[in-house]
Amino acid sequence: MHIATDRQIRDVVTIGPIIEAVEAAFRALGDSKSSVFPVARGTGSSEGHIVAVKSCRDGSTGLIGVKVAGYRPENRVSGMHAHSSTTLLVDDATGFAIAMVEANYLNGLRTAAAGAVAARYLAREDAATLGIIGTGAQAVFEVEALAAVRNIEQVSASARSVESGHRFATDVKARTGLDVVLRSTREVVEAVDILVTATPATGPLFDSAWVKPGTHISAIGSDNVGKHELPVELLSHAILVMDYPPQTMILGEAQHLIYAGLATPQELEERSLGSLVTGRISGRESRDAITVFDSTGVAVQDVAAASCVLDMLYPGWRNETATAH
Amino acid sequence: MHIATDRQIRDVVTIGPIIEAVEAAFRALGDSKSSVFPVARGTGSSEGHIVAVKSCRDGSTGLIGVKVAGYRPENRVSGMHAHSSTTLLVDDATGFAIAMVEANYLNGLRTAAAGAVAARYLAREDAATLGIIGTGAQAVFEVEALAAVRNIEQVSASARSVESGHRFATDVKARTGLDVVLRSTREVVEAVDILVTATPATGPLFDSAWVKPGTHISAIGSDNVGKHELPVELLSHAILVMDYPPQTMILGEAQHLIYAGLATPQELEERSLGSLVTGRISGRESRDAITVFDSTGVAVQDVAAASCVLDMLYPGWRNETATAH
Repeated sequence: MHIATDRQIRDVVTIGPIIEAVEAAFRALGDSKSSVFPVARGTGSSEGHIVAVKSCRDGSTGLIGVKVAGYRPENRVSGMHAHSSTTLLVDDATGFAIAMVEANYLNGLRTAAAGAVAARYLAREDAATLGIIGTGAQAVFEVEALAAVRNIEQVSASARSVESGHRFATDVKARTGLDVVLRSTREVVEAVDILVTATPATGPLFDSAWVKPGTHISAIGSDNVGKHELPVELLSHAILVMDYPPQTMILGEAQHLIYAGLATPQELEERSLGSLVTGRISGRESRDAITVFDSTGVAVQDVAAASCVLDMLYPGWRNETATAH
Repeated sequence: MHIATDRQIRDVVTIGPIIEAVEAAFRALGDSKSSVFPVARGTGSSEGHIVAVKSCRDGSTGLIGVKVAGYRPENRVSGMHAHSSTTLLVDDATGFAIAMVEANYLNGLRTAAAGAVAARYLAREDAATLGIIGTGAQAVFEVEALAAVRNIEQVSASARSVESGHRFATDVKARTGLDVVLRSTREVVEAVDILVTATPATGPLFDSAWVKPGTHISAIGSDNVGKHELPVELLSHAILVMDYPPQTMILGEAQHLIYAGLATPQELEERSLGSLVTGRISGRESRDAITVFDSTGVAVQDVAAASCVLDMLYPGWRNETATAH
């Protein structure tokens, strides 16, 4: 059995292998080689401490995994992150324990990796300008991951505060070498080939008329009931792909499409990233189409990313037999 | 962060502290200081590989925990146990990772510990004879745990095979010093003060008329829809206590009481071990009453037992700050 810590992961893990692992996980999900279990939700003892337990069997790695994710705003008072993630891996072939992986850092990579996989299939091949709305902790990973699948030359961002924007620009420069231009949300939306929304918004962030033909949008922020980043009319005309429709239709942007009566769950259920990756559904149909990836986070990403970490830290782990001692 | 292996746990952990930890966990549950999250179920990739993900916040330890339990009959072909359990602990105060605890061995102790806590409150003080129906892997832990809370002088058992019975008798002698007499189910039921049923049965194991007045019964086997060990007419006249009614009424003996129309969920919902331990409900009302503990296994037991393991293996663990690195 193994432990992988945030520090070890920061030291050795790069986004490239995580993107490949996450693509393989969505491929296995699309091929019905994986099974996502129901999400269990609960609360910690302090006010506002939310816990989500996401679990699955992942056919791409032969692992069963559980991620315990927490969101505890009070952590910030002590200078800690509000979000916490830990992933437990057991062997699908026996049921016995394999590893515990701290995923506080890894979670950002696995989320961005799903967006990169979607962009690989949905964004125009020559997409070169990237815009980010929301410059929180997730944003820098989004730039890094998208720059790994498209030749990004310019990054612009809309930040809620100057401080947040400058911190983001510094982080992006350090991690990718790219310069960030801070602009208004409208300027960002109007200018870019790929747009990422990564905010906690509960209403549309921009006007659908601002979006250029051919834009690919990665909607990362909405991962719960009531969260909302994209104008619903944009979504209704876009080519939509969801990470895991049974969950995304409840927690993601797609919830608003359904509530508005603009699509039915039956119409949307096939629009999964797994189906896109395996070629069961088509993606971008024309240069001018607007494509949207609606991301809520699926346990197979956590398992694939954690397995990838083990590959890097403990190269022999797959040859060890997981058994009861 | 820590790992605790089966081997380490076998070497240092005894039943006494586990019983105290499990009682504290049921006390916290009874005092509404804990919260059991919904159970997520799924399957592994091989036929019959069942996975259950049980999670909770446990107020007795300040931990959030998840147990991944597997049941994979094919393991037996390779000489491994069919059951597997691994528990992940995170800090309720921050959400960050604490430990991964192999619970393949510990699971037997934590199950028996709940039965011992119930017997402490329900069995007659002078109960001295113990009978076991079903001599599988769990049975020896039941004897050990009950002998820790009552002065057990005689053990009798009904086994499905002579081999299983003899193996059980050898194990009990080694762990407790007690001799086991192998008898028919009827002889066992008629003779004992405390009766444990620990079988995979799907129908009543005995006739209710065989049960002596004053007997305490610990029904361990039923932990799923359709499982069934006790005659429903016995249950309807007994003083019934369940480990966690919202779950036990679906998976335990109580399911059959409800299906038979002999009790309603509303009548049963207060009959929890937590309520018994905290004095909110009464237990044994007379020397001749028949009492039943209906056990299905609750995540708070897993967390309490795993925390107890950390206390023994890593005495300083509570002073370490769980935080993101």
